[in-house]
Amino acid sequence: MHPPEGDPTHPRTPPPRHRPHESALTPGDSARYDVRFASRAAGIVSSVMRDLMSLSERPDIISLAGGFPNTESFAREMFDEVIEVVARDHLASALQYGPTEGLLEMRERIVEIMGGDGARVGVDDVMVTTGGQQAIDLSIRTFVNPGDTILAEGPTYPGAVPCFTTYEARVEHIPMDGDGLRTDLVEEALSRLAAEGRTPKLLYTIPNFHNPAGVTMSLERREHLIRLAHDRELLIVEDNPYGQIRFEGEPLPSLWELDDGAGWVIHLSTFSKILSPGLRVGWVAAPASVLRKMNLGKQAADLCTSTMSQRFIIEYMRRYDWRDYVQRLNGIYRSRRDAMLRALEEEMPPEAVWTRPEGGLFVWATLPAYLDTTHLLASASEKHAVGFVPGRGAFLDGRGGDSMRLNFSGVPEAVISEGVRRLGVAVSEMTELHRALGGLT
Amino acid sequence: MHPPEGDPTHPRTPPPRHRPHESALTPGDSARYDVRFASRAAGIVSSVMRDLMSLSERPDIISLAGGFPNTESFAREMFDEVIEVVARDHLASALQYGPTEGLLEMRERIVEIMGGDGARVGVDDVMVTTGGQQAIDLSIRTFVNPGDTILAEGPTYPGAVPCFTTYEARVEHIPMDGDGLRTDLVEEALSRLAAEGRTPKLLYTIPNFHNPAGVTMSLERREHLIRLAHDRELLIVEDNPYGQIRFEGEPLPSLWELDDGAGWVIHLSTFSKILSPGLRVGWVAAPASVLRKMNLGKQAADLCTSTMSQRFIIEYMRRYDWRDYVQRLNGIYRSRRDAMLRALEEEMPPEAVWTRPEGGLFVWATLPAYLDTTHLLASASEKHAVGFVPGRGAFLDGRGGDSMRLNFSGVPEAVISEGVRRLGVAVSEMTELHRALGGLT
Repeated sequence: MHPPEGDPTHPRTPPPRHRPHESALTPGDSARYDVRFASRAAGIVSSVMRDLMSLSERPDIISLAGGFPNTESFAREMFDEVIEVVARDHLASALQYGPTEGLLEMRERIVEIMGGDGARVGVDDVMVTTGGQQAIDLSIRTFVNPGDTILAEGPTYPGAVPCFTTYEARVEHIPMDGDGLRTDLVEEALSRLAAEGRTPKLLYTIPNFHNPAGVTMSLERREHLIRLAHDRELLIVEDNPYGQIRFEGEPLPSLWELDDGAGWVIHLSTFSKILSPGLRVGWVAAPASVLRKMNLGKQAADLCTSTMSQRFIIEYMRRYDWRDYVQRLNGIYRSRRDAMLRALEEEMPPEAVWTRPEGGLFVWATLPAYLDTTHLLASASEKHAVGFVPGRGAFLDGRGGDSMRLNFSGVPEAVISEGVRRLGVAVSEMTELHRALGGLT
Repeated sequence: MHPPEGDPTHPRTPPPRHRPHESALTPGDSARYDVRFASRAAGIVSSVMRDLMSLSERPDIISLAGGFPNTESFAREMFDEVIEVVARDHLASALQYGPTEGLLEMRERIVEIMGGDGARVGVDDVMVTTGGQQAIDLSIRTFVNPGDTILAEGPTYPGAVPCFTTYEARVEHIPMDGDGLRTDLVEEALSRLAAEGRTPKLLYTIPNFHNPAGVTMSLERREHLIRLAHDRELLIVEDNPYGQIRFEGEPLPSLWELDDGAGWVIHLSTFSKILSPGLRVGWVAAPASVLRKMNLGKQAADLCTSTMSQRFIIEYMRRYDWRDYVQRLNGIYRSRRDAMLRALEEEMPPEAVWTRPEGGLFVWATLPAYLDTTHLLASASEKHAVGFVPGRGAFLDGRGGDSMRLNFSGVPEAVISEGVRRLGVAVSEMTELHRALGGLT
C-alpha cells in the first residue's frame, strides 16, 4: 500500500534530479580528445607518488609511500598568533594579487634562510614559487626543447618525472653511491654525449638527502661537480628541499655556494619541509636573465604565489625562529628513521640492502633482483595493507624494478615498525613463490 | 679628529659585508643563457598587466591598470571566524599536501556554484587549480603544439598572452561587437583556415564581461557558437572569471550549460573575483579524458593547490552565503563603473568611444587612430601620474594601439574621476601635439 500523500513519516521518493556526484557528461569518446592533445600531454608520465595518494586515504593501510612532513607538530598557538597579525594588519593585501616575483619581505626572509647556510644571495636573485614543484617545472620549461638531453641522478625524484616527460626531455640517468652522484660518471657522460653531438641542457640534482635515494653528495663530489660545471659549461639545477632536515653530521655547502656567483647553478628550495607543504611556497635563486625568463613562465603559470601564504610565512618568521621548529621536526624524524632502520634489519631478507640517511624523509631499499617491487606493491597493499613507492617511478628508462622508496617522516615509530613488518611478510611470500616456481618468475 | 674607539655614540663604520639586497652574482653574460633557453622561453611575451604592477606600487599614481578586486570589503570578523574553524578542526591537514584534483569538499562547493547557475556538473568533472591563470595555462599546455592555431577574441585577455606565446600558438583574433564575439566571423575563420589546411585546436573565449573589452556575448551568439562547436568539432575553452560580477541585466547560460554534456566545452573559473585572488584558487570543468591530462599537467606544475586556501574557502562557504558578499561587491563596482562612465563622458574627446559593461571590472576605450596608447601611457604615467593598460597588450598581431583597458573595481569613485581627468589632460596634450605637427605624428 502506498503511504498517503503528505505523510511526513513516509516521504515520497523525490523526483529524479541531477546528483552532483555524478558526471554530467555523456560517456566520453576519448579518441576525440586523443587526436587533439599536444605531444607534451600525450607523452607525459604521472608521478608515481601522486598515483599512490589514494593509498594514503585508505584508513586501514599503513602508507610508507607519501613524502608527508609531520604537520601535526605545528602548534595551534603559533598559528593563531601569526594569523591574528595577518588579519589585523594585512588582511586586504593578503587577499589581493601580489607581484609575480613574490613579496619583497618574503624574498628577504628567503635570503636570510639561504644566507644562514653561508650562501651569498640578494633579494633580486630570488623568485617565490608555488612550492618547490613549480620551481622544477619552471626550470625545465625555461630550458628544455623537445628532444633535449638532461642529466639526472638514477633514481631521480619521481615528482620531477612529469616535468621531464611533459617537456619531452631525454633523460640520462647518472648512478649514485653512498657519496651521492657519481661525478666521475657525469664527466664520462658529458664526453660520451659530446661525441654523439649532444650537449645536455642541464643537470638536475638533489645533493642533500636525495629523494628517493636517501644519500648526500660528499664535499669532494660537490667540488668536482662545480669544476665540471665551470670547465664544461654545464648548467646545474640544484634542488634542495631537504637541506635543513639533517639529524646528524655536519651541513655541507650548497652547489650555489660553491659556484660562488659564477652563474652555473640554479638553486631551488621550499617551505614545504621546514614549515608546511599546504601553503605552497617555494623559491628559485638564479642568474638575472634566467630569473627574467622564469618570471615570464610564472606569469603564464599562475600569475603569483598565494599572497596569504607568503604573508603568513613572513609574519611567522618575524615572531619565531623557524630553526626551533625544524629542530623539533628533526628530533621526531630521527627517531622515526631509527625505527625504520631497526625494523628493516629485523624484517628484510639478508640479500636486501638499504640506505641509512643522515636526514631527509626517505630510505631507499633494494631487494633481490628477482623481486619486482611493482608486483610487490599490488600484494602488499591489497593483502597486507602497507604501501610504498615502487622504484620504477624514479627512473625513465625502466630500471628501478628491484627497489622501493620508504618514507619515515609521515607516521609514528610503532606504525613504521608494523608497516615494515607487513612489508617483510609480503616480501617473504613473494620470495617463497619465486622459489616454489623454481626461481623462474 | 677620530672618535675614540669603543665610544658608543660614535659607532665605527662596520666592516664591509655582503648586503642582502645586492645580487651575489657576477654581472651576467646573458648570451650564455640565451643560447640555452627553450624556444618556448625565448618567444614568450609578458603580460602587459604584470609589467605594469610596479605602476600600482607608486604611491603618487592613480592606477586604472590593475584588475584588482576590492578585497577591502571582506570583513575581518568573517575572516576571523572562518580561520578559527580551520585552526581548530583542520590545522594539520590544511598545512599538509592534498590531492592534485583538489579536496573533495572543495569540488563539492564548486559544483554548487556552477549548479546555482544552472550548469550540470559533477565533482568528478572538476579539478581545483591555482587560480584561474593555471586553468588557462593547463588548457593550452594540454592541447597546443608549437605552431598550432587557436582562435581568440580580439582583444583577448592580456594575461593569456604569455600562455599563448610560451606554448608557441598561432593566434587568430576574431573581432567582437557590442554582443561579444562575432560568431559569424568564427564560422568564416574556420572555413578560411580549413582551406589552408589548418584546424584550430581550440577557441579561447571570455563570454561574460570580457577582459579587456567589457562586452558580453548575447544568447543568440552563444547558441550559434555551440552549434558551430558541434557541427565543426571545435573545442571551446570558456573562461568565466567574471560571470557572477553582474550589476544589471539577466544572467545568460554558460557555454558549458548550452553544450549540455556533449563534451565540446572546457569551463574555467576562479574564486579570485568572488572572494579573493590572494588565495589562488580556481577550477576547470572538463570531459574526463581531458581532465586526466590536465591532472598530469598539474602534477608537473605544482602538485596541488594550497590546502590551506581550499580549506578556508570550504569553511567560509559552509558558514556564509558567498552570494551576499558578491552582491555587496557588485554594488560597489556598479557605483565605480558609473563614476568611470560619467568621467569619460566629461573628459574624453568627442571622437573617443568606450564600452558600457553590465558587469566585470573593465571598460575598453578607443581613441582616434592617430593616438598611440603605448606612447600615451608613457606621458600619462610620467607627467600626469595615471596608469592604464595599453591595448596592444591584448593582441598578438600588433593591433590595439588606439585602445586602452580601464579598471574601475580597484579604486573609489573620487579617485576614478580624478584619474580619468588626468587621462583626459594627457589625451588633450597628445592631440594638440599631433595637430601642431600637422597631423603627421
